[in-house]
Amino acid sequence: MEKQWCEIMLHPFPFNDGAMTDTPSPLRIDGERLHILDQTRLPFERHELSIDTAAQAARAIACMQVRGAPLIGAIGAFGLALALRENADDAALDAAHAMLAATRPTAVNLAWALARMRRHVLPLPVAQRATAAWHEALAICDEDRAANRRIGENTLPLMRALTPRHGRLNLMTHCNAGWLATAGWGTALAGIYLAHQGGTDLHVWVSETRPRNQGLLTAWELAQAGVPHTVIADNAAGQLMREGQVDAVVIGADRIAANGDTANKVGSYLKALAAHAHGVPFWVAAPWSTIDLACADGAAIPIEQRSGSEVREVRGRSGMTTLLAPEEDVANPAFDVTPAALVSALVTELDVIDLRAGMSPASASPKTIHRT
Amino acid sequence: MEKQWCEIMLHPFPFNDGAMTDTPSPLRIDGERLHILDQTRLPFERHELSIDTAAQAARAIACMQVRGAPLIGAIGAFGLALALRENADDAALDAAHAMLAATRPTAVNLAWALARMRRHVLPLPVAQRATAAWHEALAICDEDRAANRRIGENTLPLMRALTPRHGRLNLMTHCNAGWLATAGWGTALAGIYLAHQGGTDLHVWVSETRPRNQGLLTAWELAQAGVPHTVIADNAAGQLMREGQVDAVVIGADRIAANGDTANKVGSYLKALAAHAHGVPFWVAAPWSTIDLACADGAAIPIEQRSGSEVREVRGRSGMTTLLAPEEDVANPAFDVTPAALVSALVTELDVIDLRAGMSPASASPKTIHRT
Repeated sequence: MEKQWCEIMLHPFPFNDGAMTDTPSPLRIDGERLHILDQTRLPFERHELSIDTAAQAARAIACMQVRGAPLIGAIGAFGLALALRENADDAALDAAHAMLAATRPTAVNLAWALARMRRHVLPLPVAQRATAAWHEALAICDEDRAANRRIGENTLPLMRALTPRHGRLNLMTHCNAGWLATAGWGTALAGIYLAHQGGTDLHVWVSETRPRNQGLLTAWELAQAGVPHTVIADNAAGQLMREGQVDAVVIGADRIAANGDTANKVGSYLKALAAHAHGVPFWVAAPWSTIDLACADGAAIPIEQRSGSEVREVRGRSGMTTLLAPEEDVANPAFDVTPAALVSALVTELDVIDLRAGMSPASASPKTIHRT
Repeated sequence: MEKQWCEIMLHPFPFNDGAMTDTPSPLRIDGERLHILDQTRLPFERHELSIDTAAQAARAIACMQVRGAPLIGAIGAFGLALALRENADDAALDAAHAMLAATRPTAVNLAWALARMRRHVLPLPVAQRATAAWHEALAICDEDRAANRRIGENTLPLMRALTPRHGRLNLMTHCNAGWLATAGWGTALAGIYLAHQGGTDLHVWVSETRPRNQGLLTAWELAQAGVPHTVIADNAAGQLMREGQVDAVVIGADRIAANGDTANKVGSYLKALAAHAHGVPFWVAAPWSTIDLACADGAAIPIEQRSGSEVREVRGRSGMTTLLAPEEDVANPAFDVTPAALVSALVTELDVIDLRAGMSPASASPKTIHRT
């Protein structure tokens, strides 16, 4: 049984579709077919799934076989392309769009990618739409990888400006905003990978991120890349900050409002409060496709309520175990909103938006060429 | 399998030693023998253990078969009494005292109870010490139950002063500060039980409290008492407060410094930060034996670091499941410190210490007759 772990841990970067050779990816393109890593089985088991229909794409998103705002945007785009292979008329496009958009409400990248796909194919003759859509989905992935790499590069100066309090640079992250959450590189983790590759002595506090424990995915990613890290219960974040053991917090985002309010995996807000209380910089790393200028502030961001079974049951190496009886009431908001006042900076592929200096996405958006 | 749950859930209050008939207790005295409920197996399995030696008492405390600051004080006291049955000379007393005191560092009630026991028996002839110690341990339990009941009564006026924002009174708690954590009644839950019995329409948000999931104990207690409640992941606390779904937070404590800084189960501090950000009252309910005037502030409170296995493994109905490989680094601080500035009030058996009005345990301690 121990061997199984090692096999997974030591396996080289799982997927690489050739588009950018220096990052692993949770998706793989084989000719005209899409394959994904099933993230509900990671890190315990490495299992690849073929996604051949829009319904399969929708299911993969809803069940969190793929997760992470940029990745569900990409898989949504492929889902639409797959739908058009069966029927590419306007009605079929509308239906597939609606089905895919309904899978998860909070991450705006999904709505963004679907709108972009629709815009791209709608002017085309029906016979050309499927092929054009497939190529547009590929382009979304390529752009996502490139954007995330730049997000990483834009994070490096912020890291360099820190003065580590305990020898090496101690960063904290929440959930998984690594390559598994994107087409490649990751958002919050992109800068960590680049800094580590560049020789920076750093260490990452990885919050396990109940109820779905995506922190385990982050630990798995970091282990593969050789980045020193320590897993903690979500509850430990405040105590570590109080002890001065955190030099900065860096997270991803699912939707950023025009004023900088940031929806991200539930628990992010508590870390932001603690960071603020201890003068620890709190960075949100995300591509511009995560910014939703149509939301004036966080109150306009829909917060997904997921099944109580995610709290009732925990998946481990030996499968599921049940914590709570079915008759116990459970509430399971999947996201929370961190007010802009607690965010030090938004790190995008274009620029670093310094919220402490009074900037906001609305005031900073110089190049929104890919926005609706 | 479902039946097993029901059997546990519907079982009447597990123990009642007759000293106070209106509260269940996690300990039972049968003549000169001590029995405890094994809390590492609850709520999945109801298992009673006999504690016949000081070493068994020490093990039960260290392994958290008993937990909760007042309860480990009581079990420590019984442990000392059991040690004296074998050998009651000064050296044996010293050795048992040291062994028991070393089991867990943060909760001051353990040190308090052991010091009280020592003070009580040291002037006595060696031959009388064991019996006197047993009776003193019984007295500690009786006093704890009575104190906790008064803590509950002292919490009621605070509850009555609230204006519920969503129909009924929504309280949030963390960890387990119910009867399982004490000799009876509980601290944070005492007021909830009394209010519920008095007809107050209330509902409790129960935070699961990773890594040991003591929230499941709280849910189990509340279910038995018929108190409406909902279990949440620890990460959800900030979002619920942002939505106005929490009217007050009430927790227990493991050690309270002279200035009101409060050490409690890790994660309490994050809830206090969120409560403060949203103007939600944050109450700490604890007997005076939890107040340590020798600690000027929270910096002087030792924070226990527990085994990483508590994070690596999760216990559910079907036993343990493993989340993290043994080679993954894990940090596991068991407590954190909430600064007094974030605590609205300390509710003790003697009085409510209004920290917002500038009071503190040091300034308020009028009757510390039981203190060292």
